[in-house]
Amino acid sequence: MTGIQRTTEKNLMVFTGRAHPELAREVAAELGTELVPTSAYDFANGEIYVRYEESVRGCDAFVIQSHTAPINEWIMEHLIMVDALKRASAKRITVVLPFYGYARQDKKHRGREPISARLMADLFKAAGADRLMAVDLHTAQIQGFFDGPVDHLMALPILTEYVAQKYGDQPLAVVSPDAGRIKVAEDWSHRLGGAPLAFIHKTRDINRPNETVANRVVGLVEGRVCILVDDMIDTAGTITKAADALMADGAKGVVIAATHPILSGPAVDRLKSCAATEVVVTNTLPVSPDREFDKLTTLSIAPLISRAIREVFEDGSVTSLFDGKA
Amino acid sequence: MTGIQRTTEKNLMVFTGRAHPELAREVAAELGTELVPTSAYDFANGEIYVRYEESVRGCDAFVIQSHTAPINEWIMEHLIMVDALKRASAKRITVVLPFYGYARQDKKHRGREPISARLMADLFKAAGADRLMAVDLHTAQIQGFFDGPVDHLMALPILTEYVAQKYGDQPLAVVSPDAGRIKVAEDWSHRLGGAPLAFIHKTRDINRPNETVANRVVGLVEGRVCILVDDMIDTAGTITKAADALMADGAKGVVIAATHPILSGPAVDRLKSCAATEVVVTNTLPVSPDREFDKLTTLSIAPLISRAIREVFEDGSVTSLFDGKA
Amino acid sequence: MTGIQRTTEKNLMVFTGRAHPELAREVAAELGTELVPTSAYDFANGEIYVRYEESVRGCDAFVIQSHTAPINEWIMEHLIMVDALKRASAKRITVVLPFYGYARQDKKHRGREPISARLMADLFKAAGADRLMAVDLHTAQIQGFFDGPVDHLMALPILTEYVAQKYGDQPLAVVSPDAGRIKVAEDWSHRLGGAPLAFIHKTRDINRPNETVANRVVGLVEGRVCILVDDMIDTAGTITKAADALMADGAKGVVIAATHPILSGPAVDRLKSCAATEVVVTNTLPVSPDREFDKLTTLSIAPLISRAIREVFEDGSVTSLFDGKA
Amino acid sequence: MTGIQRTTEKNLMVFTGRAHPELAREVAAELGTELVPTSAYDFANGEIYVRYEESVRGCDAFVIQSHTAPINEWIMEHLIMVDALKRASAKRITVVLPFYGYARQDKKHRGREPISARLMADLFKAAGADRLMAVDLHTAQIQGFFDGPVDHLMALPILTEYVAQKYGDQPLAVVSPDAGRIKVAEDWSHRLGGAPLAFIHKTRDINRPNETVANRVVGLVEGRVCILVDDMIDTAGTITKAADALMADGAKGVVIAATHPILSGPAVDRLKSCAATEVVVTNTLPVSPDREFDKLTTLSIAPLISRAIREVFEDGSVTSLFDGKA
Amino acid sequence: MTGIQRTTEKNLMVFTGRAHPELAREVAAELGTELVPTSAYDFANGEIYVRYEESVRGCDAFVIQSHTAPINEWIMEHLIMVDALKRASAKRITVVLPFYGYARQDKKHRGREPISARLMADLFKAAGADRLMAVDLHTAQIQGFFDGPVDHLMALPILTEYVAQKYGDQPLAVVSPDAGRIKVAEDWSHRLGGAPLAFIHKTRDINRPNETVANRVVGLVEGRVCILVDDMIDTAGTITKAADALMADGAKGVVIAATHPILSGPAVDRLKSCAATEVVVTNTLPVSPDREFDKLTTLSIAPLISRAIREVFEDGSVTSLFDGKA
Amino acid sequence: MTGIQRTTEKNLMVFTGRAHPELAREVAAELGTELVPTSAYDFANGEIYVRYEESVRGCDAFVIQSHTAPINEWIMEHLIMVDALKRASAKRITVVLPFYGYARQDKKHRGREPISARLMADLFKAAGADRLMAVDLHTAQIQGFFDGPVDHLMALPILTEYVAQKYGDQPLAVVSPDAGRIKVAEDWSHRLGGAPLAFIHKTRDINRPNETVANRVVGLVEGRVCILVDDMIDTAGTITKAADALMADGAKGVVIAATHPILSGPAVDRLKSCAATEVVVTNTLPVSPDREFDKLTTLSIAPLISRAIREVFEDGSVTSLFDGKA
Repeated sequence: MTGIQRTTEKNLMVFTGRAHPELAREVAAELGTELVPTSAYDFANGEIYVRYEESVRGCDAFVIQSHTAPINEWIMEHLIMVDALKRASAKRITVVLPFYGYARQDKKHRGREPISARLMADLFKAAGADRLMAVDLHTAQIQGFFDGPVDHLMALPILTEYVAQKYGDQPLAVVSPDAGRIKVAEDWSHRLGGAPLAFIHKTRDINRPNETVANRVVGLVEGRVCILVDDMIDTAGTITKAADALMADGAKGVVIAATHPILSGPAVDRLKSCAATEVVVTNTLPVSPDREFDKLTTLSIAPLISRAIREVFEDGSVTSLFDGKA
Repeated sequence: MTGIQRTTEKNLMVFTGRAHPELAREVAAELGTELVPTSAYDFANGEIYVRYEESVRGCDAFVIQSHTAPINEWIMEHLIMVDALKRASAKRITVVLPFYGYARQDKKHRGREPISARLMADLFKAAGADRLMAVDLHTAQIQGFFDGPVDHLMALPILTEYVAQKYGDQPLAVVSPDAGRIKVAEDWSHRLGGAPLAFIHKTRDINRPNETVANRVVGLVEGRVCILVDDMIDTAGTITKAADALMADGAKGVVIAATHPILSGPAVDRLKSCAATEVVVTNTLPVSPDREFDKLTTLSIAPLISRAIREVFEDGSVTSLFDGKA
Repeated sequence: MTGIQRTTEKNLMVFTGRAHPELAREVAAELGTELVPTSAYDFANGEIYVRYEESVRGCDAFVIQSHTAPINEWIMEHLIMVDALKRASAKRITVVLPFYGYARQDKKHRGREPISARLMADLFKAAGADRLMAVDLHTAQIQGFFDGPVDHLMALPILTEYVAQKYGDQPLAVVSPDAGRIKVAEDWSHRLGGAPLAFIHKTRDINRPNETVANRVVGLVEGRVCILVDDMIDTAGTITKAADALMADGAKGVVIAATHPILSGPAVDRLKSCAATEVVVTNTLPVSPDREFDKLTTLSIAPLISRAIREVFEDGSVTSLFDGKA
Repeated sequence: MTGIQRTTEKNLMVFTGRAHPELAREVAAELGTELVPTSAYDFANGEIYVRYEESVRGCDAFVIQSHTAPINEWIMEHLIMVDALKRASAKRITVVLPFYGYARQDKKHRGREPISARLMADLFKAAGADRLMAVDLHTAQIQGFFDGPVDHLMALPILTEYVAQKYGDQPLAVVSPDAGRIKVAEDWSHRLGGAPLAFIHKTRDINRPNETVANRVVGLVEGRVCILVDDMIDTAGTITKAADALMADGAKGVVIAATHPILSGPAVDRLKSCAATEVVVTNTLPVSPDREFDKLTTLSIAPLISRAIREVFEDGSVTSLFDGKA
Repeated sequence: MTGIQRTTEKNLMVFTGRAHPELAREVAAELGTELVPTSAYDFANGEIYVRYEESVRGCDAFVIQSHTAPINEWIMEHLIMVDALKRASAKRITVVLPFYGYARQDKKHRGREPISARLMADLFKAAGADRLMAVDLHTAQIQGFFDGPVDHLMALPILTEYVAQKYGDQPLAVVSPDAGRIKVAEDWSHRLGGAPLAFIHKTRDINRPNETVANRVVGLVEGRVCILVDDMIDTAGTITKAADALMADGAKGVVIAATHPILSGPAVDRLKSCAATEVVVTNTLPVSPDREFDKLTTLSIAPLISRAIREVFEDGSVTSLFDGKA
Repeated sequence: MTGIQRTTEKNLMVFTGRAHPELAREVAAELGTELVPTSAYDFANGEIYVRYEESVRGCDAFVIQSHTAPINEWIMEHLIMVDALKRASAKRITVVLPFYGYARQDKKHRGREPISARLMADLFKAAGADRLMAVDLHTAQIQGFFDGPVDHLMALPILTEYVAQKYGDQPLAVVSPDAGRIKVAEDWSHRLGGAPLAFIHKTRDINRPNETVANRVVGLVEGRVCILVDDMIDTAGTITKAADALMADGAKGVVIAATHPILSGPAVDRLKSCAATEVVVTNTLPVSPDREFDKLTTLSIAPLISRAIREVFEDGSVTSLFDGKA
């Protein structure tokens, strides 16, 4: 046979943008490697410049960026990093999204709206992404927005293990702040040994149809420590009102738990002053030191992401990390 | 200017496959036209053959097919019809899906599953579809699976108008058979002047975790006519148990309402023998005469589809048909 | 160099749908492996569900499905299997088509027809297929319908070896049932040491233009065992009439040989009652036990497919299996 | 409604490359317009330059180029013309191929060959072609190589009408020069009122397998004027030997008819000196004056192409030009 | 003919993002219409929301957004607007880029860099753009980055007309601030009746290779009013040093002219204090009131863009606006 | 784990077309291998036929073709070779372009022109190219025309090393023949230790605007050996006039250096008779023996291409060959 033969080797390389480098650094450390040295800065007019400081040819690239504020800036940087990898001959590019930006715009609520969550998938595809890896997508259907494999990681085991250890000896209830997201609460309930479910039902006054008049607690919460769960905490309005309603209904205590600590605008003040005694989140998004507060407990998502990356690199099973769930 | 000038004309043409021609015929009649004559038959080995009997060059094609049983046969015929239109120089091809097959497989519930609802969108795109039009998608996110415009029609006004006229003088409750689909019930409640909401909560026995032991009614249904609502009725197991539970809880009566009458396997028997006094559906799917039963009321979806087609053809607004909702 | 190095390994995995698992099982056994455990069943409304029971990440996947009746069902299952492999991160997906459905619709015979054979190629591409492998395509041009590599396998050596061993000591003739497919007969003739060619020419009565009035044998068949060859036997009308015409013309005997035993509708009865003494086929398609008959000899195509898969997996040459022909 | 309304107009524009401008000019004249003024020349190193001398924005463009020698030069010019139209905002681009280059490379005859006829379709698609229009493709399957509409025109009516008028009062036979293309002869026979078919069968000497030793005439030609038909005449080797064999078999005369006069290398000399008395072709390809000869009759294809262009422009039916055939 | 016929109408609609609505408003006014009412705002975490307030179905959409700071925010809004138009069935989407962001990253200066200008073209394509319209691209090759038509508008006539009227009675020189962009100066010179050219040559000290040590003026500028030209003014460092060098070389005066007033960081201070007496720009980018200064003259680009939009809408010629240049 | 495991091997294979096989042979020899045996010839009508004589399945293919005259012929052969590799299951296809045809048509100079350099990138993509490798592209922006990695090699080190060795002991100047390409001269200057720059400025007579009336030398060349540099020499008109102008301005001598020796039409005569004493080029393009002349020095580009191919194959760094430049 004509030609030059060689055994194929592959090289896992981890990259990060500037949005949340601490998380990426932790992921790389868990994997036993380092982040690829990268230059990234803004030009005077705000255009982003990126360059990798060493060869990435043929590598199996994992590019981590949390879509935190300023969110459009970091998404654009993420896209530019993918373009640079594609043009520098990376063999495979996995876009790692600890928090997937625009996930809530996953359908047209009204006519003439965009479906921005699909647009994000298309933009990453156009830039050169082969695969996505994301943590706790707002709706699982978003997996179907990308034309290629999506590894969907779940923070649930991390969060529930913490809660079970700390509060497991008390009577618990799992509560959804909203009728539309009871499924998440059900998964929590299963993990917490069948703790009873409850949720907050917003009722409206017929005479004032656009105003929420009451947060009614549905389910038995009296005397129980309520684990109030959601996928993300943005402005924290709904969830803190829910916490207060639970206490009013006789709950013994309230713990708020969510994967993604967006914590926009009034969120920190609301959480501080609400009835919940602890707010448990992961570090899929950075929380700046000036926004941290006593009640806040942050669990690291890095071990999960690094295990998933290793499974992907070694052609193992990501599904096996979650007992067969996707 | 060199060349030959002409004013551009466009021609709306309506096509149907063999799954549910009655509906398509009705749509065409509402539009004031006829179905394009089409030959379609199966070869001896089951391969489908399709040919249009007149020129379709330059037309604005709307191809209607309900994805009823045998569902894969009819989806394939639908795809073949689109291919034939593309190759015959149709100008624009809108695939009309009164019922979108595989819509429930819209995410990976577990690892190594397909996302068949996305696959369907991809197959229609590959065949040549420019646009989709669908009625009451199982989840609104499916709109994001197609790379192009999707007109999402809602049967809600048709169903609620019927129910309001017939039952509006009695005290009503709107009930969801399942905690995961309360949003549909909320839309019904708004349409029915703020009728109270309820739903069925399945609880499990801790000692037998995989068995549903009870259908608990949440909400006040006593003395009310319960409108039990869902997007589709497949085997009717959940919904008929819900109907019985409502009666056991003191409901004055139960009316089942859903857009898509799949009515698979034991569905007809279950519906006949359950506590509901009426089952209201639309004709997005055909119900064969031998499966019709006294309680069943079928409202026609054809006026809605024909109005939407006309808006699309005339560059009007489909959104306006639904008060701005998409 | 930053990163984690590893030698790359690859893993051949063989998958089958439900159309003809015996063939796939035989292929896997020839390769020295087993079929990947797979769940596949139909939902109540006929939608197909598929899930792989073990990780397929990074594998070199070969997905076997014979497009037998109900053909649209099995093609759809095939597509869904490809989608599931793509989303589960298979590295390369080869669609193995022992019989390629819709292959006869490879051109527009008349205006406004589909080109369904091209559509099939597009659908498999859209679902995620990287490569196709097919046995005896109806026309070789179908290779050009797929945008990627197509391995075209030929059953000719298997069939001719059997015929040569059994009938080689008698005077032979190779006969085409139809003027349009003489090329196949020529290939047989070369393989059988230059046996003379003949074929059946259908002539029409000028006064009754749409009826075939005679099957005229062109070529010398008297006193010879005629090997009547084609790529497939569907309803067996043409080929059984040809067999009878050959006997009427003084043939010593007739043996029918074809790769694909579709055997639709009246095929079995016609073959049983026709003048041919043996019908030699391969198992590219399943023949259900109740349709088998004494004259029928089925040669296994599994050794050929398994050798081709091995060559593809090991980057060997498939062409070399056929003396350079494609 | 916000915005500025206008009735849409469309403008048919006809373009030609430098390969065979006479044909394009004739087509434009039949349509009642003129060719769009175009600059086209070669740079010193052979690179082609093209520019349209007037605005083509929004036009319905038909770009005519015959793929004659130097064939790669003219194909490249054709591609460049399409690119320029795309970038200049032509609304729709139909590539008109009186002769489709590389049509004979429509499959892999042996391993590791290209499928150049598919490649051509892909290249035109990449350049920006929306549609193809071609005359008498070598195999009809080539229609399936292009991902979009293909208008397949047939010169048969033009050729047969001429032959019928000139030779219709004599006993005719339609003869194929080759067993592989009898279908073309069948179409001729139908057009010529059921004239008997014949063809030339090449037999080989077993001891010298690679040499053709005899051209045996199959069918009755004695005393008949034989119309020897093919789709193209390239070097004219096979067809002129066939003509001689027919005369040797007692034919009264031989007329050669084919759509595409490639007439490469020795073709003209062979045709001049063979037994045929007339060679009838169309002008899908140019025949330079120095290669014309007395026996050669050239019928114009321009009326056919111009009618087809008009049907396409006016959204009429091209199929209707051929009695429903495609 | 079956179906419903209608004359086709088209509707031009102009849209703007939030970056520079004044320009878009002026463009719409020049066209004689109004901007389409649009809701656009940021969610708490910075995600952008867009919705059109009236139907855009079938429209010929022109979406204007200047890529000014915060540039990534506005590009993302631009992309989201295109996605919303695509999904709302706009017929054709032209992305209007008065200033094309990331245009300077049009090649890899060093290995492992992105080509962000190409990425932008790809992102707009992925979002659904059919066409681009841009003013004074940094390099003309960027037209080739988009797979579709690009209308490239030139501000040169607007700028030169102003300069000619105000300074045409004095001896002029046209000066490039940089050897790499002399072509722009040449175009100016032609427009200004052959005014002599000059440029600034940066020389380096061999001992300090990374520092520019001198701005040498090449060409005769003594006694002349120097028109110092470039496509954009970003931080104004190079151009203001050039202005000073020209005065030092005996220029009678200096006027700075450029299309795009980015005016980042120290630009305003530098321009105020440099030797130039006037800075002429267009309003392709907004200049906030607090950054305006006495020397600054802003010419409106709106008439040019509106004329080009009208030509595109009416299938006229954009090229004709620039004497055949593209 | 089900399946058959194997360590992955890869095989570098080098292919050449017929344009400039000597270069490819030299590249292969440098790599320590041989060219893959390939059949390539023209059919009678000029269609090109290509077939590889051994299996290429799974190989890492590098396909070398210089786009020399007849340029369209060789580009088409290049495309056909890529198609054949794709269909024969090559794993990765790198198109090696020592000279990239049509590179000068990289933008629209005027309206209604093609952007042929982009078209070439699109055609190679459509044929199946995964990557491009090119030497000294006319403008670096062409890298952005291809949707994938482009390795851009620079002949500068080869050329400057030769010049430095031969002329380094004399006072040098680096001269650009044209104001638009001073950047190339700057790179030379840096490589030659900061040799002073100069260039030729074409001035026009106001009364005869379309004629160049003078080639003015800008910069100090008196008493220096002028290295007159460009990327290519086509007809050599500009560069030879520049050489003469330099001598007229007192240069001590002139050496012409360029990467690509196109040498069309009058080039050889002009170079022979001009004032330059040596013309240094590389062999990216073949120079036929009858066009060689005494002054011509040809340096081999093969070592550079072979090193780059080896880096690509071994996942090393191509950038490192050029000190980080791309």
